[in-house]
Amino acid sequence: MNKKIVLLPGDGIGAEVIHAAKDVLTAISKKFNHEFDFQYCDIGGIAIDNHQNPLPDETIEACKSSDAVLLGAVGGPKWDNNPSHLRPERGLLGIRKALDLYANLRPVKGFEKLLHASPLRQDIIQGSDLLIVRELTGGLYFGQPSERRDNGNSVVDTLTYSRKEIERIVDKAFQSARLRKKQLTSVDKANVLESSKLWREIVEEKKSDYPDVTVNHVLVDAAAMKLITEPTSFDVIVTENMFGDILSDEASVLTGSLGMLPSASLAEDGVGLYEPAHGSAPDIAGKGIANPIAMILSAALMLRYSFQLEEEAVAIEAAVERVLNQNYHTADLKSEDGKLVNTNEMTELIVNEL
Amino acid sequence: MNKKIVLLPGDGIGAEVIHAAKDVLTAISKKFNHEFDFQYCDIGGIAIDNHQNPLPDETIEACKSSDAVLLGAVGGPKWDNNPSHLRPERGLLGIRKALDLYANLRPVKGFEKLLHASPLRQDIIQGSDLLIVRELTGGLYFGQPSERRDNGNSVVDTLTYSRKEIERIVDKAFQSARLRKKQLTSVDKANVLESSKLWREIVEEKKSDYPDVTVNHVLVDAAAMKLITEPTSFDVIVTENMFGDILSDEASVLTGSLGMLPSASLAEDGVGLYEPAHGSAPDIAGKGIANPIAMILSAALMLRYSFQLEEEAVAIEAAVERVLNQNYHTADLKSEDGKLVNTNEMTELIVNEL
Ligand SMILES: CC(C)[C@H](C(=O)O)[C@@H](O)C(=O)O
Ligand SMILES: CC(C)[C@H](C(=O)O)[C@@H](O)C(=O)O
Repeated sequence: MNKKIVLLPGDGIGAEVIHAAKDVLTAISKKFNHEFDFQYCDIGGIAIDNHQNPLPDETIEACKSSDAVLLGAVGGPKWDNNPSHLRPERGLLGIRKALDLYANLRPVKGFEKLLHASPLRQDIIQGSDLLIVRELTGGLYFGQPSERRDNGNSVVDTLTYSRKEIERIVDKAFQSARLRKKQLTSVDKANVLESSKLWREIVEEKKSDYPDVTVNHVLVDAAAMKLITEPTSFDVIVTENMFGDILSDEASVLTGSLGMLPSASLAEDGVGLYEPAHGSAPDIAGKGIANPIAMILSAALMLRYSFQLEEEAVAIEAAVERVLNQNYHTADLKSEDGKLVNTNEMTELIVNEL
Repeated sequence: MNKKIVLLPGDGIGAEVIHAAKDVLTAISKKFNHEFDFQYCDIGGIAIDNHQNPLPDETIEACKSSDAVLLGAVGGPKWDNNPSHLRPERGLLGIRKALDLYANLRPVKGFEKLLHASPLRQDIIQGSDLLIVRELTGGLYFGQPSERRDNGNSVVDTLTYSRKEIERIVDKAFQSARLRKKQLTSVDKANVLESSKLWREIVEEKKSDYPDVTVNHVLVDAAAMKLITEPTSFDVIVTENMFGDILSDEASVLTGSLGMLPSASLAEDGVGLYEPAHGSAPDIAGKGIANPIAMILSAALMLRYSFQLEEEAVAIEAAVERVLNQNYHTADLKSEDGKLVNTNEMTELIVNEL
């Protein structure tokens, strides 16, 4: 198989972890006889520095003509006081929109070896394994108007969804649930928001197309509680963009494995983008100590979802698990009897396990 | 002191816990020689049943001419499929707006005796003591338009804030921080939302009026993580309505004391409304086993904030603490060597401690 992969390191630890993922993919290409062509492009803060634009046209073009995109992370204090159009996050929001990446899939599953790092009690977190399906190109993030009014004395943002936008993400979530425990939790605020009412109606309509999937509706505030008190009660969660942003970050710290969590952002038929759940971690950037596993597992998701290379994806996931079981860990994880390694060492250990 | 208190039992366990609070207030009035006149009014589901209106005019009038309002809880499955204008939540949103209750204060503090019920590890939750100040009458909850469009093929909700609305809640939060550890965390999504940018600007402007208070800004997704991983890092959190709804519910389960958490909803000079952080719990309603403590502590907040009766408020809080330290608990809390009591028994124990 011959595939073109765009690498978007972005900012902070992005470059370090992208490098790690590239090494692992190169090992996979040798072992399984594929050809992966890598092309680096700028996004986020570095793109602002190099091109005065968080999302240069050549980056968009390169992504569009690729088979898949890997993204490290964007953002950092250096650009925090920039005007809106020159903020790193614009690059991320822009590429999501440009590639129509409407579905963000975030699996949250603890590694047995790391559950001690969970902030939750063992009896509560043990056995949790959930997938958050977040709508990624609609809602408050993109609705217009979004502006100051009355000479700056008031402000408005707009939460809009079309029926079609809701339908496709709900379909995606039902399909994802079918591949798992067939339990779908739709999260909304239907007791207050009109958009949530339409959301809930559409979930109800779609039910009959997936009679094998059990559906329940939970209000977003109740979901924020239940993720903590009963994380094992969830299988697939589907929700709109803003709620998904909050709940997926909340969920990401539950298992103690934030540095291990990958994500996939998918389009209808187009190119997919894969990135770690964690951010650019400016405080440790450049030190070579970042945990590369979330990025490496994101590359595994790319193999699975964009290239249908299930065996290769599983090979990476199993290699990671074996290395963790040998008690190796990066500095983000404290462990008493573990062996502390840096980014390169962890990557090499995983490559060697392949 | 002579005060008129409106009691809004509402639905589910609301009636049971309001009754408990009334008993405690009656004991206080005797001990400290005050006169409290109680008037019952309907709100929520019961008001729909009795008046075809979740917020009858007489309820609004009674509240407006009272000195303070105690609310039990609203909602239940019976009314879940009603049309929007006949839903119990409309009553709650309506009374907030009618009384201009712009500031919702939710203290989250664990009781030593109950920390074992926390879903978090002891080392993480130990020592946490925070206050969430939520804007309660603006944002997505009330913005217009909020409607279907294109023959029902799309939908819009609107997040609006005026500068004045943000200023008054930010002032309230700074003032609250002054009475505590003087650390204010403002939560927003300023990397995406225009409304959050104005919010952050206003917090920055207000800083100079409160030079003794330390301020930091945290994005809402990061805040949802940090509440779990480092709850002790917070003192006062201030945020807009929707974010506050999610984060305050998230925070409410951290200490294991959800059934103990009161809240206060305050107006600029007008009447305050006090209610438990928990909901109407339809599953246990009518059984006489609900935990009345959140409601009783809400009554204590009423004494403190609306009537400036600090000594009386502290008397209630201390009585509750003493009863808990004697190992009494209601059915919502499991305990191996504890003494299980029902709503009436718990109330009596607290009254006897006064
Ligand atoms: C950087 C930011 C715009 C982004 C978002 O809110 O979507 C991030 O938090 C995420 O979840 O990918
Ligand atoms: C019942 C509902 C409308 C309400 C809200 O979302 O404000 C509740 O969740 C709360 O937090 O008081």
